[in-house]
Amino acid sequence: MQAIDNLVKLLSRLPGIGGKSASRIAYHLIGADENYVSSLAQSIASVKEKVRFCPVCGAYSEDGECEFCSSAARDRSLLCVVEQPQDVITIASSGIYNGLFHVLGGAISPMDGIGPDQLSFSALRDRVEKGSFSEVIIATNPTEEGDTTALYIRQLLKGYNVKVSRLAAGLPIGGDLEYADRLTLARSIRGRVSY
Amino acid sequence: MQAIDNLVKLLSRLPGIGGKSASRIAYHLIGADENYVSSLAQSIASVKEKVRFCPVCGAYSEDGECEFCSSAARDRSLLCVVEQPQDVITIASSGIYNGLFHVLGGAISPMDGIGPDQLSFSALRDRVEKGSFSEVIIATNPTEEGDTTALYIRQLLKGYNVKVSRLAAGLPIGGDLEYADRLTLARSIRGRVSY
Repeated sequence: MQAIDNLVKLLSRLPGIGGKSASRIAYHLIGADENYVSSLAQSIASVKEKVRFCPVCGAYSEDGECEFCSSAARDRSLLCVVEQPQDVITIASSGIYNGLFHVLGGAISPMDGIGPDQLSFSALRDRVEKGSFSEVIIATNPTEEGDTTALYIRQLLKGYNVKVSRLAAGLPIGGDLEYADRLTLARSIRGRVSY
Repeated sequence: MQAIDNLVKLLSRLPGIGGKSASRIAYHLIGADENYVSSLAQSIASVKEKVRFCPVCGAYSEDGECEFCSSAARDRSLLCVVEQPQDVITIASSGIYNGLFHVLGGAISPMDGIGPDQLSFSALRDRVEKGSFSEVIIATNPTEEGDTTALYIRQLLKGYNVKVSRLAAGLPIGGDLEYADRLTLARSIRGRVSY
């Protein structure tokens, strides 16, 4: 069955989808409602075309400035710096941050050939220089690359009259010490707060 | 981001895909290779059209008789009866069965309003009557519906000169007694074999 095999092969290249899930999805699609299947195909085909990036902050945007940059309701004195456009959505959907965003487009990673020139650091500096931000919150990932990038931003913004902070790293809420990995535990000990 | 939200909503209706996986897949697709994304969309859109059913056995087939019914290499004295077209692929890919198949289209389930008339029992009887099968292997699921269906087939084929068997049910190989559910354990005790 070439049509099925082909679909299974394509589906199993998606993140988190193994061979078994891919087969299950393929058989589901064969038996699924015609309208649903064509909407799904259409939605996949068009998502790349439809999604653009905000010319100001680099977040996903359907046209022009993104919903955050163009919103009058957001706090324009706070700037949260993230690696990827999807991080904007993650942080925005937490509901506890109401400022603006800046997407770097990745993290500094010499191993992968990604240096500061490939990331939007100069745009970040321009925004800080021309804007009226009181605080820049670095929300790069708690990884080696994210740490390097955070250090780079701290250097970059030295001399500007803006507070620079970074998201706290440590034990996940609701977690158990027993299940914490060694690095997270080390980080939570080093970063302990007075109580 | 309507395009992304819409895709996430459609993806999360797939079996085994929750909200988080759907988001992850959607973001992956936005960043993925253009050719891959359009092949995937195309493959999803066309799988329903391309997949037909074999007029003889009811298995998936791209046109006319399926690869099993039309193969000269398969043993035409064995007939394996399954519930769904995908079961054919599961059994064929085990590599230990080389006979033909018969797809019922489901199992008898009065609760879901599926009686014998909705399933291809008369076609099965015709095939047994006209064919030269020495054995019919019932491979319905080891569920209540599959058991009922198996009993129905045993009755249906009484009087025909054909051996009727059913797949063994019991403990999964590599499993541990401790993790076996009560029903599987009961079945493996009732169906114990001399040793």
